[in-house]
Amino acid sequence: MTRLVMKFGGTSSADPSRLEACAALIAERQKEGASIAVVVSAPAGMTDRLERDVGTADPDGQWVDEGDAVLAAGEQINAALLAMALRRLGLRARSYTGWQVGMLTDGAHGAAKIQSIETKALTQTIDGGTIAVVAGFQGLGPDGRITTLGRGGSDLSAVALAAALQAQACEIYTDVEGVYSADPRMVPTAKPIARLSYEELLEMASQGTKVMQSRSVELAMAKNVTLRILSSFEGTVPQGGTTIGTNAALERATVCAISYSRDETRIMVHRLPAGSEALTRVFAVLAEAGIQVDLIVQSPGNHVNESTLVFSLRRGDAQQALSLLTDPCHKLALDEVSLDPDMAKVSVIGIGLRSQTRMAHTMFETLCAHDIAIGAVATSETRISALIPAVDVEMAVRALHQAFGLDQART
Amino acid sequence: MTRLVMKFGGTSSADPSRLEACAALIAERQKEGASIAVVVSAPAGMTDRLERDVGTADPDGQWVDEGDAVLAAGEQINAALLAMALRRLGLRARSYTGWQVGMLTDGAHGAAKIQSIETKALTQTIDGGTIAVVAGFQGLGPDGRITTLGRGGSDLSAVALAAALQAQACEIYTDVEGVYSADPRMVPTAKPIARLSYEELLEMASQGTKVMQSRSVELAMAKNVTLRILSSFEGTVPQGGTTIGTNAALERATVCAISYSRDETRIMVHRLPAGSEALTRVFAVLAEAGIQVDLIVQSPGNHVNESTLVFSLRRGDAQQALSLLTDPCHKLALDEVSLDPDMAKVSVIGIGLRSQTRMAHTMFETLCAHDIAIGAVATSETRISALIPAVDVEMAVRALHQAFGLDQART
Repeated sequence: MTRLVMKFGGTSSADPSRLEACAALIAERQKEGASIAVVVSAPAGMTDRLERDVGTADPDGQWVDEGDAVLAAGEQINAALLAMALRRLGLRARSYTGWQVGMLTDGAHGAAKIQSIETKALTQTIDGGTIAVVAGFQGLGPDGRITTLGRGGSDLSAVALAAALQAQACEIYTDVEGVYSADPRMVPTAKPIARLSYEELLEMASQGTKVMQSRSVELAMAKNVTLRILSSFEGTVPQGGTTIGTNAALERATVCAISYSRDETRIMVHRLPAGSEALTRVFAVLAEAGIQVDLIVQSPGNHVNESTLVFSLRRGDAQQALSLLTDPCHKLALDEVSLDPDMAKVSVIGIGLRSQTRMAHTMFETLCAHDIAIGAVATSETRISALIPAVDVEMAVRALHQAFGLDQART
Repeated sequence: MTRLVMKFGGTSSADPSRLEACAALIAERQKEGASIAVVVSAPAGMTDRLERDVGTADPDGQWVDEGDAVLAAGEQINAALLAMALRRLGLRARSYTGWQVGMLTDGAHGAAKIQSIETKALTQTIDGGTIAVVAGFQGLGPDGRITTLGRGGSDLSAVALAAALQAQACEIYTDVEGVYSADPRMVPTAKPIARLSYEELLEMASQGTKVMQSRSVELAMAKNVTLRILSSFEGTVPQGGTTIGTNAALERATVCAISYSRDETRIMVHRLPAGSEALTRVFAVLAEAGIQVDLIVQSPGNHVNESTLVFSLRRGDAQQALSLLTDPCHKLALDEVSLDPDMAKVSVIGIGLRSQTRMAHTMFETLCAHDIAIGAVATSETRISALIPAVDVEMAVRALHQAFGLDQART
């Protein structure tokens, strides 16, 4: 039996007419012969309202257990409304809450991890031709209480369900046509990417492209669930979209997308004593405070036994990092620490980039040709990132999108 | 261990400040030493919103199973919000949905009957000093789905819980100070009744006084649960209110209240063949159609072997009743059926009234003194009702309230 999980987000299912559009897409897919389980988020407006209610009742966020009971209600409501929309089309459908579908979690309220899903009854239901509409974002803790899965929780429910049902794919319906080769608001020629590997999508997400939360992609990768990102706003099941699976790179050029993040601050530490001891202390202090550091470059200073350390971090963490590093009690003996808050990061994403020096060359050449100063560089298996002035980010993304041939139509 | 169930309706818990007022009342009661379980309705505005959503998704009301999943969410949300309000006061509290509290029903969606409640864990919780806040109106069907209990369902949850917990009392907090001796908008001297028997409250409810749904009172009577109707709008646990239990009548005068209903239509059947056959056929036809008949009077007609039949019924049923009775296929041979839609019913409520001919006399005398025509009369153990012109109802209620001494202050 071919099984399919279809997930609809809060924008895709925001009101009765949007729910009807979702139902029509589901009906189309069912005609193709698959057993179907659907996962829904709460409608966007309701989530806002419930979050406001919780914020009023629990301003310090202490009582996440009760907050979970409030927030999970939104998905419960929407699942039932979508089941009714499906029945209006003459289909058999029924809704399930997290506890009804046996979505068992570790009980960590507000950020629970899924432990297991009872699929026996559910499999019978969907293989018998009834569409199961499952409330996303929620599960049941070991103490019998409702737990929510945190941000991106409905995607996670969908991926976990697809894995448990051994579904052919997990389709994530959203308000865009797929994962784009660059932000389409910035690059008019940007196109949905046909195929991506999990690693590439994870790298894009970590470099600022907003698609899915990393934890859902990681779960899909671990369980080998094929993901499809599709638009629910085309009135019919879209032909395009982005498919995410293993070995996607074999089928296309190496560079798949340009990502960017404006949320970067650069810290420069001048005259740091050379050698690994001082460097280790710097990052130990930051790590203890839970501050994540991204790009790191150490270069020789003006004197022997001195070096210059440059690293980037999220803007929100910058002031705390500065205070930590200049605090005398840390004995860092840092003569001069400076901070530049107006930085951005631009990244070229693709599998096997580290071994492709040609790619790095193309990147630097392109940025130089546009007079964009490169503040620091980092590479990984799947990306080359450069720290640049925030003011140049649009120009950089457009230029790189063109330089790597992403402007051309692709299959 | 003394246990107490406190129930708050949708008006009493409509918004954050009202929830805080509820929490303060609960805190006061807990200080007195009782183990406390609370039952909440959904906030009034949310119920309206969810009912609108369900009406849009399921205009024909066919899919009550999914409607139940939507509607039950309102109580779930409010229970969690109230638990948080209690915690803000430094109290221990946690919320329970219907399925979490083991409120098992017969599975009849939209109008489920409670079958049993698992009280073991709940008893431990509340006897340990934690306040349990239970979502009213809902339970779990045999198939593991959410079922709602229908109108007045939260009262029913509260009474059932009080019975299962062997609670000392079930306190129903509402927006009035108790059960009044007459509608206070109509009779300015009307007062809350200190004590009532179940039978009297049931009779008042059936005669138009809006307090609690009869099914909740009936359950309380069957399980011998003491009810207290109290206002949640006094800022502190009210001293007054109405207590409903057995043998309440021993402690006060016989007549306790005047009820009325404006929703009455009188049907007169002239020249009905005398004897029980024709009469039986009339009521068989109406009963088959599910039409409830209230007051019935049969009197001799102008000719021997003929009689005049007068009965009253709810206005909404009148046209259907008329069509049924005049339909030739029923062979009722009814020469003349007439309908008077502008009737009202006024009732004197109290235990043991049937044997108190003095009471009936006082009633007729009072109505006559005010030139109010009596269309029909009926008595039961606990009431004397008269059908009167709708235009006279206010005058009748005020006059009877005074005539039966209900204007005086009572303990």
